[in-house]
Amino acid sequence: MLRRGEVLRVIDPIGGQVSDMVAFIADAPGESLSNGRTFDYEETLRLTTGNRLWSNLSRPIVEIIEDSVGTHDFLLTPCSEATFRHFYPGRPVHRGCHGNLAEALAPHAIVPAAIPTAFNIFMNVPIGADGRIKVEPPKSKAGDFIRLRALEDLIVGLTACSAYDSCGGSFKPLHYAIEGASDAQR
Amino acid sequence: MLRRGEVLRVIDPIGGQVSDMVAFIADAPGESLSNGRTFDYEETLRLTTGNRLWSNLSRPIVEIIEDSVGTHDFLLTPCSEATFRHFYPGRPVHRGCHGNLAEALAPHAIVPAAIPTAFNIFMNVPIGADGRIKVEPPKSKAGDFIRLRALEDLIVGLTACSAYDSCGGSFKPLHYAIEGASDAQR
Repeated sequence: MLRRGEVLRVIDPIGGQVSDMVAFIADAPGESLSNGRTFDYEETLRLTTGNRLWSNLSRPIVEIIEDSVGTHDFLLTPCSEATFRHFYPGRPVHRGCHGNLAEALAPHAIVPAAIPTAFNIFMNVPIGADGRIKVEPPKSKAGDFIRLRALEDLIVGLTACSAYDSCGGSFKPLHYAIEGASDAQR
Repeated sequence: MLRRGEVLRVIDPIGGQVSDMVAFIADAPGESLSNGRTFDYEETLRLTTGNRLWSNLSRPIVEIIEDSVGTHDFLLTPCSEATFRHFYPGRPVHRGCHGNLAEALAPHAIVPAAIPTAFNIFMNVPIGADGRIKVEPPKSKAGDFIRLRALEDLIVGLTACSAYDSCGGSFKPLHYAIEGASDAQR
């Protein structure tokens, strides 16, 4: 639970890791983070300091207040058993970010099908002039971070990514911290 | 209801109109069209003949089998009262595509918050090198069409767009036809 006004700091301690983040409004079942509404209102696919992330019902729910990397993705969904089988045939299958998020969110009565496209922190997905996309290694280095202020009371799901392309399949760690509303003003 | 194997033809009879389309698997509550999963598996933002649209649970549910335009959008959400107020202050507010879809889908027990980012047929949203996006007039001319084959039994929501930027706020018509599975093989 991230209370309104609190700040979530997501840190890449080693460098080259990705964190999939989803968010649900605590008191509004069915209202959650929406890439489409965010693209509507922010008018860009490249979200960084000053941009807000919006819910599917047109509420701004998170504001990016500091960002030492500037490269994130909001196009792609969390990796899952199905995506491992599709993209990495013959390699070990992991439940992936989707499986991690599903387990963490189940106690909050959030079912797997309700997990939206994630805000993929530090994920590097360049877009070609022809619209083609590819997943490249993150630009984040050891100690890089992003700070996200909650604009509503939120249930946040956060996971370190296990997909091979996103982070080299290295199962690197990901750190986070929650700063109280008074600290967060600084 | 669009049965597996049937083909939905969406036609722009005058030119310059946009149609927001959403789809839900008929026998799988909560499973619906997902832009993120589609971008994952198709590896492009520019979807046209030969591309498939995927569900949030990694099933291909629609295949684009013919497309006389080639420019569509899958980034933005259906316009709504909130988007009219945000983008067009002082101009008349319409319930928009979201309101139209919500009314049409209610008898199928699909609530407004469950309406995903739509596949916006004929919508023209160029992406700048810096990630900025803007809504420009559609490239579709009178008689242009797209044909979409259902790969599962689907509940499809389809609406002509009423947003000012998408189609000049002209409330132009949009036509559609359903071709049976046998016709659709031709």
